[in-house]
Amino acid sequence: MIQKEEISLWFQSLQDRICTSLEQADETGKFMEDKWIREEGGGGRTRILQNGNIIEKGGVLFSAVHGPVPAFITGENNSIKQEDTFFATGVSIVIHPNNPMVPIIHMNVRYFEMSNGIWWFGGGIDLTPHYVKEEDAHFFHNSLKTVCDKHDPSYYEKFKKWADDYFFIPHRNETRGIGGIFFDKLSGTDALSKEKLFEFVKEVGSAFAPIYTSIMRKNYQEKFTTENKQWQLLRRGRYVEFNLVYDKGTKFGLETNGRTESILMSLPSNASWFYNYIPRPEGKEAQTLTFLKKGIQWSN
Amino acid sequence: MIQKEEISLWFQSLQDRICTSLEQADETGKFMEDKWIREEGGGGRTRILQNGNIIEKGGVLFSAVHGPVPAFITGENNSIKQEDTFFATGVSIVIHPNNPMVPIIHMNVRYFEMSNGIWWFGGGIDLTPHYVKEEDAHFFHNSLKTVCDKHDPSYYEKFKKWADDYFFIPHRNETRGIGGIFFDKLSGTDALSKEKLFEFVKEVGSAFAPIYTSIMRKNYQEKFTTENKQWQLLRRGRYVEFNLVYDKGTKFGLETNGRTESILMSLPSNASWFYNYIPRPEGKEAQTLTFLKKGIQWSN
Repeated sequence: MIQKEEISLWFQSLQDRICTSLEQADETGKFMEDKWIREEGGGGRTRILQNGNIIEKGGVLFSAVHGPVPAFITGENNSIKQEDTFFATGVSIVIHPNNPMVPIIHMNVRYFEMSNGIWWFGGGIDLTPHYVKEEDAHFFHNSLKTVCDKHDPSYYEKFKKWADDYFFIPHRNETRGIGGIFFDKLSGTDALSKEKLFEFVKEVGSAFAPIYTSIMRKNYQEKFTTENKQWQLLRRGRYVEFNLVYDKGTKFGLETNGRTESILMSLPSNASWFYNYIPRPEGKEAQTLTFLKKGIQWSN
Repeated sequence: MIQKEEISLWFQSLQDRICTSLEQADETGKFMEDKWIREEGGGGRTRILQNGNIIEKGGVLFSAVHGPVPAFITGENNSIKQEDTFFATGVSIVIHPNNPMVPIIHMNVRYFEMSNGIWWFGGGIDLTPHYVKEEDAHFFHNSLKTVCDKHDPSYYEKFKKWADDYFFIPHRNETRGIGGIFFDKLSGTDALSKEKLFEFVKEVGSAFAPIYTSIMRKNYQEKFTTENKQWQLLRRGRYVEFNLVYDKGTKFGLETNGRTESILMSLPSNASWFYNYIPRPEGKEAQTLTFLKKGIQWSN
């Protein structure tokens, strides 16, 4: 059976590789690192790049924490005993680019286990373009489908729908972006199924840098107007709304007394709200809104 | 017994008076109005002023809504029957000024009743300076204490503590601002107690415009630097965090399918987040942080 230490080490090396790739693509930006220790057990390495050439603000976080199972988890599950402990490790990424023509991206891979033997993997990648470009959306989803198809022919469809449902802002009746894949509590009963799931999660994690750096390089030199920039800030406002109101990771982090600056690295350098802003019909902004719906088929 | 229609009409006229006072103080800004109707019963008048001389974005909202008691309220209270209806009316205000030396302010007065005879008042006023000026903080709290003392010598202390506890951001270990007064579910058993509570709530509502326009006029011409402006945007980021993560009115509104643009008028035109920003010691920013604590005695 794969041990938690092996998974955690792999996630650490993934963080290293992704930071290197992003720095190379950005050309000038450098990640700074904050190492932190969690009082109840474990800790993490928070890496932040601010004011790069392409990336305005990006975080690539690794953590591996452990300790007594939090009360609000034991409370809802009778099979967990007070003396049980948990272990959780993962990599989380959010990148906010300077240029409104480059999309925001989010990636997460994570592993959770309890001393009672329960374990699972979770994660996903999703893209939030300020302006939806259909060719990028196709490339993004096709890339994710390729990753999924290698492991299980049912994965892409299932995890794409899961992302549509998860990255949704009910009070705006909008998806956060064009989705991607999302999965949680993937588990199994034997060593082989664990190995297979870990292989899948590794493939998702490894796919992030090639996919995003390709989208970065393709778009970062596009010209943009003040109106484009203003629209980017409004879209970032929606990103803030999703993350603070609905995102389960953020909620979990804030409620369990997590490291606030690491949890909220997902928020952009700046964001705007304008009362009842309605983009002019026929514009690219209005067109983008038509793509922020569940159930759009982006893969071939 | 005072009827709900009388309360609702008084709140409407309060909205009118406050908008007039704010426009006068601002000198150039004008409120625009959106009237809206709630499908399940009632509606409101959302008034927004954007890009004024002193006020960058401000909302003064009136609403009076009614209908079947929402399931999540009946669920937690056995004495409520399915056929019971509710009525809620109130005025809500948030003002974000241009100049970082002018504080953000929030005010709310509200009345709630159910067809089973249960009724209560709630509300409060609280101030969120980007830079805490002690003389303004004293003036603000002394004004509120005067309002409270006219009605009950225990009110100010009780409601000031309530505001400290309510307007608190646990994940930052900071209060949202310098507090003020907050009260909820003030009720009584007879006509006289209802009349007295309504008188108190009226006094709170009527105190808003004189207090805030005085603070506006005193500070709006102060010079400020780019650093001051940047700090204002970071403080606005905290305001967004409080409102989206903790504010009960916002949560209630979003969960009950309220009018999103009215609920989120409380968010500023723009806000910033900078990873792990620590103001230089001895600066006015660091000094302000020392004032964002519970339990500071601001009144004489």
